[in-house]
Amino acid sequence: MHQPHFGSDNASGMAPEIIEALARSSAGGVDSYGGDGLTLALEEKFGEIFETDVSVVPVGTGTIANALSLAFLTPPWGAIFCYEGAHIVVDEANAPEFFTGGAKLIGLEGDHGRLHPDVLRRGAAPMDAEDVHHPRPSVLSITQASECGTLYSPDEIRALGDTARGLGLAVHMDGARFANAVAALDCRPADMTWRAGVEVLSFGATKNGCMAAEAIVVFGDRRKDVPILHRHHKRAGQLFSKMRFVSAQLEAYLESGNWLAWARNANTQASRLADGLKEIEGVRLIHPVDVNEIFLEMPLAVFERLERTGFGFYPIQPTGNDTGTVRLVTSFNTSSDDIDRLLTAATTA
Amino acid sequence: MHQPHFGSDNASGMAPEIIEALARSSAGGVDSYGGDGLTLALEEKFGEIFETDVSVVPVGTGTIANALSLAFLTPPWGAIFCYEGAHIVVDEANAPEFFTGGAKLIGLEGDHGRLHPDVLRRGAAPMDAEDVHHPRPSVLSITQASECGTLYSPDEIRALGDTARGLGLAVHMDGARFANAVAALDCRPADMTWRAGVEVLSFGATKNGCMAAEAIVVFGDRRKDVPILHRHHKRAGQLFSKMRFVSAQLEAYLESGNWLAWARNANTQASRLADGLKEIEGVRLIHPVDVNEIFLEMPLAVFERLERTGFGFYPIQPTGNDTGTVRLVTSFNTSSDDIDRLLTAATTA
Amino acid sequence: MHQPHFGSDNASGMAPEIIEALARSSAGGVDSYGGDGLTLALEEKFGEIFETDVSVVPVGTGTIANALSLAFLTPPWGAIFCYEGAHIVVDEANAPEFFTGGAKLIGLEGDHGRLHPDVLRRGAAPMDAEDVHHPRPSVLSITQASECGTLYSPDEIRALGDTARGLGLAVHMDGARFANAVAALDCRPADMTWRAGVEVLSFGATKNGCMAAEAIVVFGDRRKDVPILHRHHKRAGQLFSKMRFVSAQLEAYLESGNWLAWARNANTQASRLADGLKEIEGVRLIHPVDVNEIFLEMPLAVFERLERTGFGFYPIQPTGNDTGTVRLVTSFNTSSDDIDRLLTAATTA
Amino acid sequence: MHQPHFGSDNASGMAPEIIEALARSSAGGVDSYGGDGLTLALEEKFGEIFETDVSVVPVGTGTIANALSLAFLTPPWGAIFCYEGAHIVVDEANAPEFFTGGAKLIGLEGDHGRLHPDVLRRGAAPMDAEDVHHPRPSVLSITQASECGTLYSPDEIRALGDTARGLGLAVHMDGARFANAVAALDCRPADMTWRAGVEVLSFGATKNGCMAAEAIVVFGDRRKDVPILHRHHKRAGQLFSKMRFVSAQLEAYLESGNWLAWARNANTQASRLADGLKEIEGVRLIHPVDVNEIFLEMPLAVFERLERTGFGFYPIQPTGNDTGTVRLVTSFNTSSDDIDRLLTAATTA
Repeated sequence: MHQPHFGSDNASGMAPEIIEALARSSAGGVDSYGGDGLTLALEEKFGEIFETDVSVVPVGTGTIANALSLAFLTPPWGAIFCYEGAHIVVDEANAPEFFTGGAKLIGLEGDHGRLHPDVLRRGAAPMDAEDVHHPRPSVLSITQASECGTLYSPDEIRALGDTARGLGLAVHMDGARFANAVAALDCRPADMTWRAGVEVLSFGATKNGCMAAEAIVVFGDRRKDVPILHRHHKRAGQLFSKMRFVSAQLEAYLESGNWLAWARNANTQASRLADGLKEIEGVRLIHPVDVNEIFLEMPLAVFERLERTGFGFYPIQPTGNDTGTVRLVTSFNTSSDDIDRLLTAATTA
Repeated sequence: MHQPHFGSDNASGMAPEIIEALARSSAGGVDSYGGDGLTLALEEKFGEIFETDVSVVPVGTGTIANALSLAFLTPPWGAIFCYEGAHIVVDEANAPEFFTGGAKLIGLEGDHGRLHPDVLRRGAAPMDAEDVHHPRPSVLSITQASECGTLYSPDEIRALGDTARGLGLAVHMDGARFANAVAALDCRPADMTWRAGVEVLSFGATKNGCMAAEAIVVFGDRRKDVPILHRHHKRAGQLFSKMRFVSAQLEAYLESGNWLAWARNANTQASRLADGLKEIEGVRLIHPVDVNEIFLEMPLAVFERLERTGFGFYPIQPTGNDTGTVRLVTSFNTSSDDIDRLLTAATTA
Repeated sequence: MHQPHFGSDNASGMAPEIIEALARSSAGGVDSYGGDGLTLALEEKFGEIFETDVSVVPVGTGTIANALSLAFLTPPWGAIFCYEGAHIVVDEANAPEFFTGGAKLIGLEGDHGRLHPDVLRRGAAPMDAEDVHHPRPSVLSITQASECGTLYSPDEIRALGDTARGLGLAVHMDGARFANAVAALDCRPADMTWRAGVEVLSFGATKNGCMAAEAIVVFGDRRKDVPILHRHHKRAGQLFSKMRFVSAQLEAYLESGNWLAWARNANTQASRLADGLKEIEGVRLIHPVDVNEIFLEMPLAVFERLERTGFGFYPIQPTGNDTGTVRLVTSFNTSSDDIDRLLTAATTA
Repeated sequence: MHQPHFGSDNASGMAPEIIEALARSSAGGVDSYGGDGLTLALEEKFGEIFETDVSVVPVGTGTIANALSLAFLTPPWGAIFCYEGAHIVVDEANAPEFFTGGAKLIGLEGDHGRLHPDVLRRGAAPMDAEDVHHPRPSVLSITQASECGTLYSPDEIRALGDTARGLGLAVHMDGARFANAVAALDCRPADMTWRAGVEVLSFGATKNGCMAAEAIVVFGDRRKDVPILHRHHKRAGQLFSKMRFVSAQLEAYLESGNWLAWARNANTQASRLADGLKEIEGVRLIHPVDVNEIFLEMPLAVFERLERTGFGFYPIQPTGNDTGTVRLVTSFNTSSDDIDRLLTAATTA
């Protein structure tokens, strides 16, 4: 039964290729805690994707991917600069503060979720990195695609990376929807990451067809400290005894370009849905739709029509008597037919 | 390909029923973060097993099940009493200290891994619970089946529970091999837990045929504080977005008595293996074999013969020129044929 | 030798009464760790000042007074609302995050350092206290006198207190310059604290003539949880073995109205200094001068003249070619003559 | 009024030289937070005492001196080896666990409080430093004089230091009664510390005549990481704004050999007291009396006679119907007359 849910891309299940990979990898006894062949092969696989040597630490959720990445990059007395509406600020229950031992997140103003180098410079300016009274400026964390469903170009990331480096900051990328970003920009993963100054990436796969699989990818000089990241990882309860099953997901995800094909579908369907909805009277896009997230203001009546499809949604947030704001997210397995049915419903009284 | 690995029960893959459950539960869109029907039904399912109302919080690893259970039961200035060789002391990279905010683990002497009430009393005696200088005695944590592969009887657990209550301690059970214990004792799960004074249980399923699924089960009065446990859980990065897949494993695990059937097989094969090996000259059981773990001292020559089967093992630890100690663990899918082959090999020069 | 330093009020030494109290209290052997008579009498003394029963926990620095107060009031997953330039945000090296186990500080816009209830309401609005994903709104922390040297009236504090209570927030007051506030408002300490909704006060004494003495003062229902605060206190290394010497300072500070007399002098001298300086061409007050802190923009040439007195200052922060901003702070022992000399210097080319 | 208290050396007040130093240093305005001349001169002063370049970080209590020293030396996943009855294990309310972010203290068996290299080796043996599952062996912490009032010889410390280095452990010394140890051994401070392998010393002064002053002293290569220690220090709330008053104590303490003269007096009086008491029937020394602590078993009747002097004591712990154990501690200002009165009382029915 295909029953689409537009509340989030993590409301979808697994892609069939992932289920098959899990089943296939279950055969036989293997060394636990990452001593299996699938896990041992991951770094080579990711190295091909990123065109450079990388370190890869597989984890189970995006929350922990971000929290451990930050714990790896900042001391407890550090300051992490990010967009004020970033997931790590508003949606992770202080997990970053907890895992870093008390680092401070400094939310900066964004342009549809994207930071500008000037804003970063102004945010860091009042802090003297050598003054023990102040939080020590330590990390820039950006989200690609952003929490508003928008994208940085590789050039914009490089400009932020240069600014960060000038300020003595390490650069982290929250890539919960990394595949959607790569697919939309049609760029090389390397151009959006290490070539632009990103040192640690939370590489998301769960939202785009996996079950529970993310990877912390470490680039360049930071790799020499990866043994410390492995201690964080174990102590966080993320060293799965049957690690092969996280690795099997990641392997199948990257195999034959699956990840990009799935992301491309989600992006395409979102684009179609946004194009259709914005033509309806009273419907307004709050942010540009660069990937698979659509932020809308719409008449409550229109939303009720969408709900009548029986598809899944999270509740609309009323902003007035008759209107509200809602986020719709498409997924790796959203079909053209799903979108057609939504658009038909939306315009049918 | 069936290729057994006797290094640990977590060296095995998934039971076919678990794979099927994962595949089945993948259909359709559902609310994420535990809003799905499978997760919502878990507490009723566990309630049947335990013959009482329970709260259930699913997690991905045993490390985190224990660490969050303890964080739920002790303040940061608390002391946790346990066997000196307990997994939480020696094998979890200080995760309990981290998640509790700095509680202290106090390792006590055991009898083949089992604590005695007198030892607990003596361990707690020097601490005055009202003196701010001292760690505050807060939790007793016992492991069933123990780290030495032995069992407490329900009566022994009740005696420990009574002693703990008298000392003002909460009682936690690390049940990484809970199914093996229930199967071996052929007792009701309730008799081994809440009826004997256990308040929080780390209910393990991964080692016994699941992929990555454990549950923190909370009994009795402690249930009113479970909202606090949910905060720990989210902040620890354990609130899986596609939580249905953890819940699906737990559901299928408990369904039709699968869990006990699988554990029973593991126990039976361990018993056969131990019985056969101990007859060999120079082979000695270090601990009684109550469930599916066998701790052995044996001639290195015998171990080499076992290895010649091509089956998986972790290295033997030499204790002298010619002998060493090794742990062998059977699993839900260990076959009689596997054991026959091992025993044949062991006795064939 | 009297050598004034206008960089901060903590650049001054001790009042003679405090030195005498230290010397006097040194006689004889007494129980350590707060078992001495001076410490045991503190709560009665503070109770008189605050016209109600209070709990008092003496500590050595303002950093720790604030950090432990917050750790007492928020869970690790909580959010603390405060002025964006609050000391706890910018000047305590993440001590609040550390001692709370990772709570999040949310900086809000202020009016010369003072929060308005509407700003608080807007800041808390996006967070759902029952949603485990979000930081849980837990504490309002206000500073009286504020970091900009301004004051809330008791009515304004009560309005904030009411708003906070409506949002489910505990109310903390950072009173590093509490005496200066009471002296300037000429109000009862009770009206500015518990009668206005404040539940925990960091009562500062160090800046106003003590050596190293602050007190965490707990009011009303929160007092029943004070045993927990004592655990935080010991674990933070703040249970001084010779606690009598912290208590002796606090006792002498409150004795015969010393604290208010000293604060009144500091306020008066600041007022005179501000009145004189603002008449000088190019000199501008950045914030109203309600207590003993003066924030100024002035020509660099004027600052150089001030420096020629040989008095102490912290460096001016240049804001342009010829001007800069600087903070001047008067103290319990600033004399009229000191101010005369400064004003004369400032106007003498 | 001189009213001795034999419960602890921290039941005494300040030496007159310390009071004078506090009064003297109060004159004039100075830069706060350690920018004053007294603080800036500390490292040279300590450097002379230790005959080498050292880094010095002044703090207010022994609890925090130890906790920050350990936080400086171990990662959160580290293991700290120490005597099972060490102050850091039993008397600091988990402060070491808290400040280290969750490191584990491993208590080892001692000989009257002293560790032997073999015991350390056996304790560390089961842990593989490279295995992420295990706590990582990180620090040896020894107490000189020990918690049982006994001493290591410099040679014994060097043997432990060599063993520790061989195991990859940093070496910390808890010197709460460091002066008593140096005075008793009549050795150079260097021989007992860095020349014997100690890298970080908690240098105590409070118990021996100061008010509240301890210093973390860092030797050798560890000095290059001291900026990190300064961050811990500030974040712990130990960077006193009027730091001059901590430094003034330390300066006066070291001046003209005060510290050793005071410690010598305490040791001498303890020796006299122990010699007298042990002659009384039924009185037994539990540990050798190497410095100023006497651990005794005695008839309750004898203790009651001691109490009749009106001097201060902490309660005796009954061990049978008629006997109990008690600790008596002499101080920098214990007089021969005090001891005479005690001994007379003890033997007078």
